[in-house]
Amino acid sequence: MKFGGTSVADIDRIRHVATLVKREVERGNKVAVVVSAMAGETNKLVAWTNDAARPDAAGLAALPDQREYDVVVAAGEQVTAGLLAITLNAMGIKARSWLGWQVPINTSAVHGSARIEGVPATDMQAAIENGEVAVVAGFQGVAPGTRISTLGRGGSDTSAVAVAAGISAARCDIYTDVDGVYTTDPRIVPKARRLEKIAFEEMLEMASLGAKVLQTRSVEIAMLHRVPTRVLSTFTPDVGGTLLCDEEDIVEKKPVTGIAYSRDEAKITLHKVPDKPGVASAIFGPLADAGVNVDMIVQNVSEDGKTTDLTFTCTRGELNRALAAIEAQSKAIGYRDVTHTADVAKVSIIGIGMRAHPGVAQTMFRTLSDKGINIQVISTSEIKVSVLIAEEYVELAVRALHSAYELDAA
Amino acid sequence: MKFGGTSVADIDRIRHVATLVKREVERGNKVAVVVSAMAGETNKLVAWTNDAARPDAAGLAALPDQREYDVVVAAGEQVTAGLLAITLNAMGIKARSWLGWQVPINTSAVHGSARIEGVPATDMQAAIENGEVAVVAGFQGVAPGTRISTLGRGGSDTSAVAVAAGISAARCDIYTDVDGVYTTDPRIVPKARRLEKIAFEEMLEMASLGAKVLQTRSVEIAMLHRVPTRVLSTFTPDVGGTLLCDEEDIVEKKPVTGIAYSRDEAKITLHKVPDKPGVASAIFGPLADAGVNVDMIVQNVSEDGKTTDLTFTCTRGELNRALAAIEAQSKAIGYRDVTHTADVAKVSIIGIGMRAHPGVAQTMFRTLSDKGINIQVISTSEIKVSVLIAEEYVELAVRALHSAYELDAA
Repeated sequence: MKFGGTSVADIDRIRHVATLVKREVERGNKVAVVVSAMAGETNKLVAWTNDAARPDAAGLAALPDQREYDVVVAAGEQVTAGLLAITLNAMGIKARSWLGWQVPINTSAVHGSARIEGVPATDMQAAIENGEVAVVAGFQGVAPGTRISTLGRGGSDTSAVAVAAGISAARCDIYTDVDGVYTTDPRIVPKARRLEKIAFEEMLEMASLGAKVLQTRSVEIAMLHRVPTRVLSTFTPDVGGTLLCDEEDIVEKKPVTGIAYSRDEAKITLHKVPDKPGVASAIFGPLADAGVNVDMIVQNVSEDGKTTDLTFTCTRGELNRALAAIEAQSKAIGYRDVTHTADVAKVSIIGIGMRAHPGVAQTMFRTLSDKGINIQVISTSEIKVSVLIAEEYVELAVRALHSAYELDAA
Repeated sequence: MKFGGTSVADIDRIRHVATLVKREVERGNKVAVVVSAMAGETNKLVAWTNDAARPDAAGLAALPDQREYDVVVAAGEQVTAGLLAITLNAMGIKARSWLGWQVPINTSAVHGSARIEGVPATDMQAAIENGEVAVVAGFQGVAPGTRISTLGRGGSDTSAVAVAAGISAARCDIYTDVDGVYTTDPRIVPKARRLEKIAFEEMLEMASLGAKVLQTRSVEIAMLHRVPTRVLSTFTPDVGGTLLCDEEDIVEKKPVTGIAYSRDEAKITLHKVPDKPGVASAIFGPLADAGVNVDMIVQNVSEDGKTTDLTFTCTRGELNRALAAIEAQSKAIGYRDVTHTADVAKVSIIGIGMRAHPGVAQTMFRTLSDKGINIQVISTSEIKVSVLIAEEYVELAVRALHSAYELDAA
């Protein structure tokens, strides 16, 4: 069972979480619980680290030492884990807290956004087998050399799935503030439907492409270890929920399962780039070195046989870094000029059924065209099609596609 | 260097602490720093644990699971240690935080008030030798089985002295909100003088008998390991200070070095107790079992040869528990009735010079008598005399004794 920050925002909510844990125990289940920091605590701790990193009271904020950042921020989940264990014990449910280094949740040494490498939770598993609820501090682990590490924002989902895999749990229940995974964002499409089941692969695309219900890395781990993972609501735990499962377990395969969108997109175009071998690596090598994650790429067909236009996208937060990297290499690349915009968004259709249904992409293009929406960039994989459009059309595009693929609730 | 909660109460103060650390480093010293939680944080965390221990929102507060209490409360010092390390690194001083389990500070398993058993800080010492400032989270350690433990309120002083002993530090500087150890409480006696030096034994008595400047256990460890320990002010670090040292290092030995007092006293009298062997153990055995720390004891001379009155003291917090333990054993003890009062206080004179100066106690008794103050109980050791008096006379008694022993500042 995993509970996020809003589910443990104060002692009353922690008590509610404890009743949900108690219910599972009383059903005869053996339980590990992964908790986030109380809502607001992480932001407070992060703000302190930023303030502490200024060399003097008037100084500009530098980046805090990342290892120490982790020490400070990990305290948030430590507090929640202890408080939930206290609450459970007070209710007569035997429980103890497990911090990242105690489990242990072994991670890489990339402090601030470490990657879980293994959860050899032998002692914890023995305690659970012995009838004790294990309350695990989410979001944190231990890097080589016994330094505390954190997984980056949203990392508690990943902790939960990795712990579930580590102790070979029969199920991983992610309790959150929504009651499942929807065909698309219900705030944009009131007719969005909750999915009973979704394939791991589909969920992975949904998460990567903008659906915020689960962190991408958590879905990767669930998929890799085949952990049956449910998404359900802390506040209405008996209603609905969505099960992440193997493709084979999904009987009815519609061509499109869900529609995701992301506004966190920026587009850069290099005009009149020499159309010759090596130019792509001259552009994307420096971008990779600058830590820019290039997403979509499109290279126009050369009109004059000598030069071409090249467009790519990255997140808005990376836009300035990307431009600086390109400009620093302007001679090596040899373009005429660069244009950029953050006034774009990405809309994606996702579905494992796409493999069996030709013409799925065509429906997307025609639907958008019918609404007068221009497609700027296209990228596809076996189970998704993404298009870049002007941001102002996002809601319209998502609604139109939701209807076109017959996802609307009756 | 050790800094308490008010010295690290916010980021600006942490920055001030960092400048003091930097100064020591620039003097060529290798430094370990022990920090408390930011003022107020511990109280907040403790309140949460109490709230979490209620079985439901309306329920009575139970005692929180002590092991989990430690997990929650230890987060306070973890945050400060990380923040100070961030600040030092931002100032260009290489530093890293060390949590209790990382040092390790090994403690007993008595969660909530664990006792330090050893500080085998091999890795930390190597890091310090290597020029890195070690920022140690005070107040916390690790109990057998790698559970987090805490030392009880004020435990950061103890952490500091134990770490100093563990790494064979040349000196342990306790930075606090006063600039040293005074002959008595300056709030009561404006003519109180700061002591340049005080013997470990004297400081131990001062701390045990009510002086709040250092925690008793920290002085015990300093004495045991002969750690030269200084008390000085965070806010005026260049003024004054008091050095705890060996008796031999103190040249001028006045009969009395300091005067301590404590209002946290309660007195219980058992009237008409049978005057026969075994009665003391019938009384004090059950008290010990109930966790009552009996302090002063006086047994009157029997008037009738058959019964006597027996009086003892404990802290006010233990009074009810002591009365319950006595009443539960009323038949086994066989007294006529019990009276008690919390309207008492203990005043003590302390000085290693007492050994060489006969008549020191007599001066105390005469001085109190001259002021019309009745002595209710007396207890003595080689280097102190304590008397129990009515609480209303505390200030008067302390001031009169301060003058009588020629401790007043010129």
